[in-house]
Amino acid sequence: MNYQGGEYDVIVIGAGHAGVEAGLASARMGANTLMLTLNLDAVAYMPCNPSVGGPAKGIVVREIDALGGEMGRNIDKTHIQMRMLNTGKGPAVRALRAQADKFLYQHEMKKTIEETPNLLLRQGMVEELIIEDGVCKGVVTQTGAEYRSKAVVVTTGTYLRGKVILGDLAYDSGPNNMQPSVNLSHNLKDLGFEMVRFKTGTPPRVNSQTIDYSKTEIQPGDDVPRAFSYETTKYITDQLPCWLTYTNDETHEIINSNLQRSPMYSGMIEGTGPRYCPSIEDKIVRFSDKPRHQIFLEPEGRNTSEVYVQGLSTSLPEDIQLNMLKTIPGLEEVRMMRPGYAIEYDAMVPTQLWPSLETKKIDSLFTAGQINGTSGYEEAAGQGLMAGINAALKVQDKEPLILDRSDAYIGVLIDDLVTKGTNEPYRLLTSRAEYRLLLRHDNADLRLTERGHEIGLISDERFARFEEKKQAIAGEIKRLEKTTIKVSDEAQALLESIPSSPLKDAMNATVLLKRPEVNYSHVAQLTPPQKELDEDVQEQVEIQLKYQGYIAKQLEQVQRLKKMETKKLPVDLDYMSISGLAMEARQKLSEVRPLTMAQASRVSGVTPADVSVLLVYMEQGRLKKVHASNKAES
Amino acid sequence: MNYQGGEYDVIVIGAGHAGVEAGLASARMGANTLMLTLNLDAVAYMPCNPSVGGPAKGIVVREIDALGGEMGRNIDKTHIQMRMLNTGKGPAVRALRAQADKFLYQHEMKKTIEETPNLLLRQGMVEELIIEDGVCKGVVTQTGAEYRSKAVVVTTGTYLRGKVILGDLAYDSGPNNMQPSVNLSHNLKDLGFEMVRFKTGTPPRVNSQTIDYSKTEIQPGDDVPRAFSYETTKYITDQLPCWLTYTNDETHEIINSNLQRSPMYSGMIEGTGPRYCPSIEDKIVRFSDKPRHQIFLEPEGRNTSEVYVQGLSTSLPEDIQLNMLKTIPGLEEVRMMRPGYAIEYDAMVPTQLWPSLETKKIDSLFTAGQINGTSGYEEAAGQGLMAGINAALKVQDKEPLILDRSDAYIGVLIDDLVTKGTNEPYRLLTSRAEYRLLLRHDNADLRLTERGHEIGLISDERFARFEEKKQAIAGEIKRLEKTTIKVSDEAQALLESIPSSPLKDAMNATVLLKRPEVNYSHVAQLTPPQKELDEDVQEQVEIQLKYQGYIAKQLEQVQRLKKMETKKLPVDLDYMSISGLAMEARQKLSEVRPLTMAQASRVSGVTPADVSVLLVYMEQGRLKKVHASNKAES
Ligand SMILES: Cc1cc2nc3c(=O)[nH]c(=O)nc-3n(C[C@H](O)[C@H](O)[C@H](O)COP(=O)(O)OP(=O)(O)OC[C@H]3O[C@@H](n4cnc5c(N)ncnc54)[C@H](O)[C@@H]3O)c2cc1C
Ligand SMILES: Cc1cc2nc3c(=O)[nH]c(=O)nc-3n(C[C@H](O)[C@H](O)[C@H](O)COP(=O)(O)OP(=O)(O)OC[C@H]3O[C@@H](n4cnc5c(N)ncnc54)[C@H](O)[C@@H]3O)c2cc1C
Repeated sequence: MNYQGGEYDVIVIGAGHAGVEAGLASARMGANTLMLTLNLDAVAYMPCNPSVGGPAKGIVVREIDALGGEMGRNIDKTHIQMRMLNTGKGPAVRALRAQADKFLYQHEMKKTIEETPNLLLRQGMVEELIIEDGVCKGVVTQTGAEYRSKAVVVTTGTYLRGKVILGDLAYDSGPNNMQPSVNLSHNLKDLGFEMVRFKTGTPPRVNSQTIDYSKTEIQPGDDVPRAFSYETTKYITDQLPCWLTYTNDETHEIINSNLQRSPMYSGMIEGTGPRYCPSIEDKIVRFSDKPRHQIFLEPEGRNTSEVYVQGLSTSLPEDIQLNMLKTIPGLEEVRMMRPGYAIEYDAMVPTQLWPSLETKKIDSLFTAGQINGTSGYEEAAGQGLMAGINAALKVQDKEPLILDRSDAYIGVLIDDLVTKGTNEPYRLLTSRAEYRLLLRHDNADLRLTERGHEIGLISDERFARFEEKKQAIAGEIKRLEKTTIKVSDEAQALLESIPSSPLKDAMNATVLLKRPEVNYSHVAQLTPPQKELDEDVQEQVEIQLKYQGYIAKQLEQVQRLKKMETKKLPVDLDYMSISGLAMEARQKLSEVRPLTMAQASRVSGVTPADVSVLLVYMEQGRLKKVHASNKAES
Repeated sequence: MNYQGGEYDVIVIGAGHAGVEAGLASARMGANTLMLTLNLDAVAYMPCNPSVGGPAKGIVVREIDALGGEMGRNIDKTHIQMRMLNTGKGPAVRALRAQADKFLYQHEMKKTIEETPNLLLRQGMVEELIIEDGVCKGVVTQTGAEYRSKAVVVTTGTYLRGKVILGDLAYDSGPNNMQPSVNLSHNLKDLGFEMVRFKTGTPPRVNSQTIDYSKTEIQPGDDVPRAFSYETTKYITDQLPCWLTYTNDETHEIINSNLQRSPMYSGMIEGTGPRYCPSIEDKIVRFSDKPRHQIFLEPEGRNTSEVYVQGLSTSLPEDIQLNMLKTIPGLEEVRMMRPGYAIEYDAMVPTQLWPSLETKKIDSLFTAGQINGTSGYEEAAGQGLMAGINAALKVQDKEPLILDRSDAYIGVLIDDLVTKGTNEPYRLLTSRAEYRLLLRHDNADLRLTERGHEIGLISDERFARFEEKKQAIAGEIKRLEKTTIKVSDEAQALLESIPSSPLKDAMNATVLLKRPEVNYSHVAQLTPPQKELDEDVQEQVEIQLKYQGYIAKQLEQVQRLKKMETKKLPVDLDYMSISGLAMEARQKLSEVRPLTMAQASRVSGVTPADVSVLLVYMEQGRLKKVHASNKAES
């Protein structure tokens, strides 16, 4: 028997990494929000690697933070180790990576949610969406509660018809033997959504007490205190190390001789796996010439002996997993606590979404996270945040917030998904971004804090601090541009000490700073600012000046593209009737329904020739009816 | 495909409150132990009230500690509040009760297990027991691992064919939507075990932020630092309060008018529920004249807003739960986070067990905890400890440890189960013990530390401290017995201040101490010991002397019974052929197969006349073959 469970502005289905961001953002933007999840003991649960960040992903976490999301703050409070990767390389590839205390991460996030006004977290299994006249109006749970709302965000991760696979064993289940979500998957299909079957996998966990760490290499955290969030001021100082070891011939031999027992090769697994997070059996087969693979031993928390064996994701039978573990230096006597496994699940074809993450088919229905075909906590959180924001904006009758590819990795991620779709669990990589030098770890705040403030997720106080920082950077750059470093004994001595070649003539300070071996502190020694600048201001001044040329070039490209971005396309353009377009382009464009010429040009299967035809078509003004109510326009 | 997973001395199935004690005890006694559980994230999970102790149960925790078990130490490290109940009453009914941090409790226990030598904790679902020639030789898991062992302890709690019921909704599930355990239940039935269907229930959890505590009464923890464990030396000082409120007419009206929607009354629930932990609908129906029932609001931990609504266990539909919550003072605006529900599960008929908790049917197979028809964490832990001890002793070819009814509440519990069986989830109550004055909170160590030391669970160092304490008590009692308090101004002044009547003549110190209003410290003032005694020594001296008469009387009764206990009965006695016995007695005795005359006398359905017949039968020496290898004799 159904009953009326109450009315909300926004309902979020799921409290994984996407769901928690969606719920928090929506509630903080003032929307009365209900968040439903299968198990309150597993809010923000990490079913796979206990870590946050890394290349591209780490930058997403910074972007989430700059927009007012939670992931950065939460991991800052609950990590066991923090490291900046690629510090030796250029600023575009630097990335922060934290090892999480898996349990604290969950509890801290849950606590934050529980204490957020306008937000109700409740255990419950959604089985059906309430759709009226093509608009999503709420959800129905297993217990018969009908919750009504103005918008719904679905973030069901790997739970939709989840199936755990391990050797020749397969059973219906969510991650780590949690309940799967079956009826909602059927409901989505019944509503006409195209679904695909994906899979992902996780490695075994072993007991730390049974590892001989002396045979491995230590990977300590950074000595410098680090944080993802621009708000963090308290740093965790007692870090735990991780450990590095390797597979070897023996490991590979065991895997090779047991491939016939691998569900990946026996045909038991139907879902498509992530190419960039391959299982160890996949790696051995695909890179058969590689003599060894890295294995990182990562603690799952401060108060547990469970250790995550990164690099050994597998769905081989349990006995093979154990045999293969024991060949690895340091793990000879290891005791396995949980076996690795693969999980198959239903995902939505993401080209069914607008860039706002609202579905094209059903109004006021948003989807975010692994359900959209991605993998990874950060990818999920980034989407969750955007879907939560856009659901709240929708409820407030405001235009959606859509990030460009040049604004943020989150923009790249969502544009890739809705424009190109994906035929495997999508993972964010630096190579997916065209403007890597713009989308840096260090400038996420400069790129996005204003947007976060506009929508109400960044407090006035934080915004004022941000503005101050921006002005300090601009001021110092201006000062240096006007400063000439004269030839002097002091200057020559300093340059010699770096070492850098001596000055022949007086030189503009910014020119000197562009020398690769010279950094801001050198220049500041020769021409100190009135008041010493904050470190992050110094960093910005240095990067912005040092890479000025490259940055300017990328900005130019962005400008060119922006022209294309301003050329809007009506959502109901009848591509099929545009005779000049190739048949593939007509079909793909009809499916994706790009909002701009630029997005159209990125649709896979659309050639530059097709783009020209479309440009001409639009410019010739053949298009008469321009739809003012283009709902998902930015 | 099955594979050989390795050999162990003892395998424990389950890591609930019974399983963790069994596994720890067995490993600490030197048995190489494997512990298998469905979900490593839910070790020592509390699916119901986040608390440990209380009447009778609290004494069990002390007994567990005195024997070297873990529950006391664990709750001492992870509670949020500790209170001694009934401090105003006699020492027999005093009981300690702690509010647990549900999450910390789990993590601390898991960590202890992970760090215990000889103990391997592993995630895995047991589906089958390996039985060869009537002896349990190991287990087979879902992933095909065959683990071999010399003994197996089954502690599967409420998971066997678990079914969650909530209003008109019912689905297969363990507690809180965890995986149920289906195949193992079938396996036990196939092995010939008689199973029953029981049920238990839990109340809703609500968000603390939405409670108006000003309308409730505060229940703070004790100011005095308290601990369950005799080893604890560090006390938690920042305690959280609980809160007391009440149901009222309106609450009762809502329940009454919705009884037809209650699965308890609609016939949907088949299992038998615990009479002493009734659901609120049960209370309203059975005690219809009671105008109100107590409701305690108990935080589920320090770092969560979830609050357990003690007293409101229910399986009424979700909407009714919410309506009924809102009638309660303080909860008018409350937001429910998880609904209450009932769970049905298979349990073993416990008369199929020897007092060692080994099954009669299958050698080397032990069962403990809720599977044996009990309810409650402490009851589970007490049994788990005994089963773990006895499994390890069995492996070491030693006699089992069996506690008498006069030794411990644990003895009462197990004797009740194996002798009388139970037709509802059994709960330990003080009224179940005949020797309440012997089985006190304060003397658990005196009763059991020696046993714990003998089997190797109490360290020599702790035992030495214990011996010291024992000697100090005995020494002081002896001293007081020899001490005469003379009539003096000092004595009269002190007595007047208490107030107590003045001395007429000199009086023996112990006689003075027996005055109800006089306590040890008064007496010690008049006749100070050479060196001030520890508080717990003082407490023992006082209690043992004050209640000397009563205690002596109970000890006498015990002695009388002990005679009966020494009259052993052979396990294969053919009761059916003893003509003088009533038919019911013949059947019941054949089923229970008591080990002693005393146990026989407690079998339900066995009358004093039957006992006489049996005594005569045995004494007439008609019984020829006395089986030396009576396996479960103490
Ligand atoms: C075994 C495994 C291995 C993985 N390996 C990797 C890897 O190697 N690399 C990588 O980057 N990522 C990996 N991941 C993916 C990573 O876990 C996810 O990307 C991330 O957790 C997705 O976040 P999400 O919020 O989309 O979904 P989830 O974190 O899965 O959260 C989904 C939420 O939805 C809830 N829910 C589901 N159905 C319902 C319903 N009907 N009603 C109410 N609530 C519902 C669930 O309770 C849960 O709270 C792996 C995941 C698993 C399970
Ligand atoms: C909804 C609910 C309400 C309750 N209400 C009350 C109450 O009001 N009062 C009260 O005193 N008690 C109550 N209890 C009972 C209390 O939870 C139990 O008494 C106690 O947890 C029992 O401990 P246990 O160790 O026997 O079993 P559990 O704590 O249930 O542990 C069972 C363990 O066995 C494991 N397991 C099960 N099957 C397998 C398998 N095939 N292979 C491997 N591992 C397996 C599980 O993973 C788990 O670790 C309630 C329990 C529930 C679920």
